[in-house]
Order: sequence, then C-alpha cells, then structure tokens
Amino acid sequence: MAGGGTYTLAELATRVGGMVVGNGERVLAGIRPLDEASPEHLSFYHNRRYLDAARASRAGALLVADPGPFAGRDLLVCADPYAAFAELLKVFHPQTPIPAGVHPNAVVAASARIAAGVSVGATAVVGERAVIGERAVLGPGAVVGDDAEVGADTVLHPHVIVEPRCRIGARCILHAGVVIGSDGYGFATVGGVHHKVPQVGIVVVEDDVELGANVCVDRATLGETRIGRGTKVDNLVQIGHNVRIGEHCLLVAQAAIAGSARLGHHVVMAGQSGVGGHLHLGDGTQVTAKAGVLADTAPGEVVSGMPSRPQREFLQAMANLYRLDALKRRVKELEAAVARIGEKSE
Amino acid sequence: MAGGGTYTLAELATRVGGMVVGNGERVLAGIRPLDEASPEHLSFYHNRRYLDAARASRAGALLVADPGPFAGRDLLVCADPYAAFAELLKVFHPQTPIPAGVHPNAVVAASARIAAGVSVGATAVVGERAVIGERAVLGPGAVVGDDAEVGADTVLHPHVIVEPRCRIGARCILHAGVVIGSDGYGFATVGGVHHKVPQVGIVVVEDDVELGANVCVDRATLGETRIGRGTKVDNLVQIGHNVRIGEHCLLVAQAAIAGSARLGHHVVMAGQSGVGGHLHLGDGTQVTAKAGVLADTAPGEVVSGMPSRPQREFLQAMANLYRLDALKRRVKELEAAVARIGEKSE
Amino acid sequence: MAGGGTYTLAELATRVGGMVVGNGERVLAGIRPLDEASPEHLSFYHNRRYLDAARASRAGALLVADPGPFAGRDLLVCADPYAAFAELLKVFHPQTPIPAGVHPNAVVAASARIAAGVSVGATAVVGERAVIGERAVLGPGAVVGDDAEVGADTVLHPHVIVEPRCRIGARCILHAGVVIGSDGYGFATVGGVHHKVPQVGIVVVEDDVELGANVCVDRATLGETRIGRGTKVDNLVQIGHNVRIGEHCLLVAQAAIAGSARLGHHVVMAGQSGVGGHLHLGDGTQVTAKAGVLADTAPGEVVSGMPSRPQREFLQAMANLYRLDALKRRVKELEAAVARIGEKSE
Repeated sequence: MAGGGTYTLAELATRVGGMVVGNGERVLAGIRPLDEASPEHLSFYHNRRYLDAARASRAGALLVADPGPFAGRDLLVCADPYAAFAELLKVFHPQTPIPAGVHPNAVVAASARIAAGVSVGATAVVGERAVIGERAVLGPGAVVGDDAEVGADTVLHPHVIVEPRCRIGARCILHAGVVIGSDGYGFATVGGVHHKVPQVGIVVVEDDVELGANVCVDRATLGETRIGRGTKVDNLVQIGHNVRIGEHCLLVAQAAIAGSARLGHHVVMAGQSGVGGHLHLGDGTQVTAKAGVLADTAPGEVVSGMPSRPQREFLQAMANLYRLDALKRRVKELEAAVARIGEKSE
Repeated sequence: MAGGGTYTLAELATRVGGMVVGNGERVLAGIRPLDEASPEHLSFYHNRRYLDAARASRAGALLVADPGPFAGRDLLVCADPYAAFAELLKVFHPQTPIPAGVHPNAVVAASARIAAGVSVGATAVVGERAVIGERAVLGPGAVVGDDAEVGADTVLHPHVIVEPRCRIGARCILHAGVVIGSDGYGFATVGGVHHKVPQVGIVVVEDDVELGANVCVDRATLGETRIGRGTKVDNLVQIGHNVRIGEHCLLVAQAAIAGSARLGHHVVMAGQSGVGGHLHLGDGTQVTAKAGVLADTAPGEVVSGMPSRPQREFLQAMANLYRLDALKRRVKELEAAVARIGEKSE
Repeated sequence: MAGGGTYTLAELATRVGGMVVGNGERVLAGIRPLDEASPEHLSFYHNRRYLDAARASRAGALLVADPGPFAGRDLLVCADPYAAFAELLKVFHPQTPIPAGVHPNAVVAASARIAAGVSVGATAVVGERAVIGERAVLGPGAVVGDDAEVGADTVLHPHVIVEPRCRIGARCILHAGVVIGSDGYGFATVGGVHHKVPQVGIVVVEDDVELGANVCVDRATLGETRIGRGTKVDNLVQIGHNVRIGEHCLLVAQAAIAGSARLGHHVVMAGQSGVGGHLHLGDGTQVTAKAGVLADTAPGEVVSGMPSRPQREFLQAMANLYRLDALKRRVKELEAAVARIGEKSE
C-alpha cells in the first residue's frame, strides 16, 4: 500500500488536535511499530508493556499521552493516542477507491436493483429483487440472496453470504466468509427424532457494524435476529437465532450467543466466552475471556468463570482454589493439635 | 416470505391433532412471536420464562400445552406445542420450490451424473464423476469434488464444499460455508519437524443430517469419518478425522470432537464443549456447555467441567468453591480456639 | 482413490528402514485400520488403547514398534511406526497430480504472474499483480487478491481467500475456507463509539505451513502477522493481528491467539485453548486443552486452566476441588471436637 506522502510533525498534530513537543518541522513519511520505525517515521506508545521498546525506538517522533518518560524526543502529545493513531493511519494510508462497475463474470439477477457507484466483483452473485445501496462493494464470490438488501457504502469481502431476505445496513464491513441468515438451530424432538422447526425469520444488521471473518449469524425462527448499530464483531463468532444485540457492543473472537439472548448496549464479550439462550445482559455488561454466562446480568456487571459469577468472586475463588494445599495443611495440624489436647484431657 | 393463506383455529387444530379451547372459527393469518402478534395471529407458549409475555400478548390465539393460565382466551392445546409450532410454521410458510436446472454460469464436469430435478446454482462447481441425487439443490458457489456424492433432496447452501470422494446422504441440509472432507490433523513428528500423514479416507454423512454454517468435518486418515442419520450440528462445530457420530445426536455451536472419538446415539454436546481423541461417549451422553471430556462416558451420563465430571459433582464442587471464604474463616476460628485451649492447658 | 499396487512386506520394510519379523514374502495390497484389515492388508499399532484390537485384527501384517505382544504374526518393526505409517500411506496412495492450466471459468488479472505448472480451478479469481509460484494449485473459487503472493507447490483448497498483499510461502496447504488477511480487530473507542483503526499491514505465512478449514488469520495493523515455517494449524483456529508464531508449532482446532501475542518455536496449543494479547510464550510451551493463558510462559512450560497455571498445580487444584466435601466434613468434626473440649474445660 503506497504511503500518503510526507508531513511535518506540526501538520500531523493539527490533524489530530494534538500538541508538539520538540521539533514541529521534523518531516515524517509514515507510521511504523516501535521496533520497525526509522528516523523518518512516527511511532506510537499506548501500552505500558512497551515502554522500554518506546525508549529504544529509532522513530523520529512518538505519539504519546504523557511526555514524561521521553525527555529530549520529538513528540506528538494527545489525550487519546490510540484514537489519534487510527486517524493518522488514514492520513498515511489513504484507501484506494474501488472502481464502480459489475464484473463481466458476476451474475446479477435482472430484477436486482444496483445503485450508483456499486462494485460487484468477479463471480459474485446477486439474487432476484436484491437491493444494493450506493457505493457498496461486493467482493469476488460474494452472494446476496433473493430479496436481500445491502446498505450504502457497505463492503462485503470475498465469499460473504447474505441469505435471502436478510438486510445489511450502511457503512458495514463484512469480512471474508461471513454467513448471514443461515437457519437457526431449532428442532422439535419427538420420540428421540429431531424434526426441523422451519426458520422463516430474517437477520437485520444495523448501520456501522463490522463482522469478522467466518462469523455466523442465524436467521430468526420468526421475526428478526438483530445486531445493533456500531457493534463490532471479531472472527468466528456465533450469533444464534432471534438474538438481539444492542448498539456499540464488542464481541471478541469465537464468542457465542445462544438463541433468543438479548444484549444491551455497550456490552463486551471477550474471546471464547458464551451466553446461554433467552438471557438478558444489561447495558455495559462485560463478560471476560472464556466465561460462560448462565444467568441475566445487571447493567455494568463484570462476570467471569463457568458458570459465570461476578469477576471479583471468581478471582477470589481462583486464589482460594490454588491455596487449598495450605488450607488442608492447616486442617491437618488442627486435627493433630485437637488429638493431643484430647489425649491430655483424658 | 409470503404467508400461506388464512385458516380457522379449528383447521389448525386438525392439522396438528390438537384441541380447540374457545372460538374454533377464529380466522388466523400467520404465526408471530408473543410480543409481535396481533389478533389475526396465532402465537405460542412453551417456555415458562415467557408466561407474562404470553398473558400480555395481543395474539388472537395461543398454542399451549396447558390451558390453565389462559382462561378466557382462544387456545390450541397440544401435548407438544413446540412440535405443533414446527408443523404450523410449514402451513403458514410453505417453502417456495427451487426451480430445477443448471445455471449457465455453473461448471459441471461432463462425467458428473446429475439426476432429475436437480438445481445447480450460479458459479457452483461439480467435479468429475460426481453424483448428484434427485431434486438436490446446489447453491451458488457450492463445490462438489471429483467422485463425491450428494443424496436426493439434499440442499447445499452457498459455498458449501464437499471435497473429493466424500458422500452426503439424502434429505440433508448443509448450511453456507460447510467444509466436508478437509484433511485430518495428522503429523508424524521427527526431530521436532512435523511430517504430514496423508489423509486418504473419506467423510460419510448419513441421511437427514443438518450441518450449520462453517462447520468443518475432516476426512479420515484411512476409512471413514461418519455422521449418523438424523444428527443435527450447529454452526462452527469441528469434527476431527475418523470420528464416528451416532444417530440423532445434537452438537451445539462451536463444539469440537477430536480425532477417532466415537459418540453413541442421541448424544448431546452443548455449546463450546469438547471431546478428546479416541474416547467413547455412550448413548444418550450429555456434555454440558464448555465441558471438556477426557474420559469415556457411560450411557446416559451427564458431564460438566474441564476435565469433565458427573454434573452433580461439578455443581457441588462449584458451590464448595464459592464458599471457600467461609471455610477458611471456620478454620481460622478453630485455630484461635485451639490456641486458647492450648494456653489454658499449659 | 486407487491403491498403488502390491508390495511384499520386505519391500515395505526397505522403504521405511524397518525390520521384518516373520514372512517377508507376504504380499500386501493396502493399509487398513485394525478392524477393517484383511489378510492382504498391512495395519498398524501405535496407541496402547488399541492393543486388543491389534491382537484381534485379521491384517496380514502389522506395523509395530515392539514385536513383544504379537508372537507368531508377520510384523514390520520400526522405531517410529507412526512416521513409517505416514510414509507407507504415500506408497499405497500415490497422489494423483493435478493437471496444470487455467480453467476457462477462472478470472485471472492480466497483470498477474502465473508460473509454470500452476493449476487455477473453475471460478478462482487472481487479482492484479498477484504472483503464483510454480506448480501451485488454486482450487475452485479460491481468491488471491491484488499484489498477493502464493509460493511454489502450495495448494489452496476451494474457496481459500488470500486478501491483497498477503504472502504465502512454498509447499503450504491451505484447506477450504481459510481466510488470510482479514482486518485485525482494532478500534479506538471515543465516547462509547468504536472507531475503526485501519489495518494496513499484511500476513506472511512461511514455507511448509498447513492451515485447517475455515482458519482465520488477520492482517497486522502495521507490519506483519507471521506464521513460522513448518507450523501446522487445525480447523477453525483464530490468529489475531500482529501475532508472531514461531516454527514447527501445533495449533489444534478452535485455538485462538489474541493480537500481538508471540509464540516461540515448537509451541503446542491444544484444542479450544486461548492466549491473551501481547503475551510471549517461550519455545516449547504446551497449552493444554481449553486453557486460557493470561501471562507469559517460560520455555518448555506446560500450562492448564483458566487463568492458566502450571499443569501440575492445575491438576492438584482440581483434585483438591473435588475433595472439598471431605475437607468440609473434617472441619465440621474439628468444630464438634473443639466444642466438646471447650465444654469440659469450663
């Protein structure tokens, strides 16, 4: 990816509303990680783990929150260096616009409505009556089913599948291999044989949602499975039928949400965590890595373990668990002491 | 999805062998969830969690097992309302038949045998000598490898991959992104270097199996990996090489079965659970969510935790774990008491 | 798959540097599992679990490490029977070479460089300036993005996606549905809204790597995500942005590695295990099944549990946990004994 030219440190500070410490005229040609940066590069420090690496970095300038540990260096000081970093990445790495047009090897149904500026890649397939919004991008092999909708400025990476009637909002990013609208896992078991419950609902993905590679979102049995505006989902996450996810949630890799669960806004599910069916997680709930939630949570709760408990209780339990040898020793000593006393008193 | 017309409550009761309570002449135009139903809709109640919602529902009629809590309402009473619900969904949402034919953008080898009534979607690929049974549906981008077989009335959703020589039975449903017949994970390590063990076996999926989106089933090293008749597998499940799964099992999302494990019939693996290699799970074993099974199980066993134990032991252990602070306090008090006694007795 | 002809036991022993016990002139026509082998087949015994099956097997000859339990049978004795088994599988199942050429339904950009002997399958897509090395195989529907590279003799199974600029080494095997170069999960949260951090780095997969079906490897925010030479990855594994994995590692199904973690060489992560972000795992670290690593590990450490601890401590803790009922009883008895003593001494 070609860089976006060179900038002075002062120019970059203006872009992100930051403050220069040192030489504002220093010319920078790119952003690099601490250990790969040369004097012509800006680098960044926002995780204490890398303080030594930041001090040792050959970077020409550093993006930091606190100039304290970096006396004598050229700095760009920002209240939120990670947000500034995101902004400056766009400056140095402007996205190449994808040319509009339908590839001759794409297959687009005659009744589909393709808005202006849309790009449909090679071997992509768009079904009957599907609607693709302005400037949306369908990568190679993407499949948009009959009666499905993709919003404006949304990007479907290669091989994304939007099954019939499902709706994707505007400015979404669906990474390669995402499946939207597979059947929910619903069976009525009669005499040990599982009979399929037809899954006739849909999936609605609201605006500004990002879904990682190979994420699966099942269609509702009836009604909708819904992912709220601004929610960001990592790779290989499973979202069951009739799940409702609020706005601005974060679901980290391999998390799983069972059918009909409801997540409030700003809920965080860490990697490999899970939530049982039909549960309600209050706004701002945080589920830590690998936790399994089997009960509703109150707003702002932080839960850990399987079955999950408040994180503080979990950590205390783990500490107790790994000190059980000591407790057993104390009980043994007590038993000996009591035996001695018993002998004396007889 | 267009509804399937209107029906009287009495007509619906006849369909499912149920009993009308109230007005059998009430006309119903669809099934809706409790909170979305209007007076022209049937709704359903089969989970105690939703009793208040059922009472508050505006639905014209309710499908229930027990009329008790619903005095004065029009009801369709069934012994198994969930099974009746599944049946009535088919009445109100009849499936649109997919027209037979090979899409001009599909790629079908000359030596492939495509039975009558088959639908092969755009960009689907069928290899040499592959056999596709009557009325099977291959969605857009589905790939059936050389010498592979797909049974009659089976549906492969978009981008399903059946690698060479693998065999899928009749009336199966494979959701988008399923991979059948990837190589098993087998390496012979010599001097720290891992040498591939060729995986020359196949996968056999028996009749009436459903596999969720992005499920992976590895081919056997030699012989077969086999999934038994009527087994239903949720999204993102991993099935290793040479695994044998019995009939009518349920494998919930993100479960994983290591190589050469054998599951009996009617085994249930809940979400994110795992089974180690070469183990045998008896018929009707239930593995609870997130459990990791490292030993054989007897028929009907219910196991939890990692490493897994009988569920009752696990629950008792968890209860004990979270009461360790209390136990520690009691030991401390004992120590103080014994010290006092010791002082007195000297 | 047609077998590779017949061989005498002595010929096979020569192939793998083994020793014949019994009749070296015995003619063998294939390898079969113990319970499927007939007198014309070789079978193998390398897992004590199957000793009875090995003794009962009808196989004409057995591949074993120790002739001890098999008196009177024809044997091929090898120091490492599993490695010999891998070798002999190649003898009996020689791979059919895939014919070179670009399928007429593939879409290859004019600026792409396709080396000699390459096979590009139906509906595969190769982007601008992409480079495909000699004899590489791109299965049906594989997508190689703009400026991406695929090394010589590498096989991309159907629907593998290599996103733009990523680089795959030589002799790699990427199974169906693998996604290389999806965006890393990076967001700068300002006022509760998550702003995307552009992911402008790449993925580098070194030589001789195997990646299982539906594996996801995210591109780096800046710089590289890298998988070292000879590392073997099982199905549905998640590898985050900027992760560095050493050489000859084994990552079993559904393992997950969070962003910027570094694994040394010969690290083993068992099924469903996870490693937190920014951690360093020393060479030869072993993470057992379902463990969650939240701290750096020393070379050769074996860790278990969540949060992980040295395996020995974990096993002791689990043993203690399931004996807590007994400890509680002992404390109760102590309390009674102390109460009795207290009464007497008053």
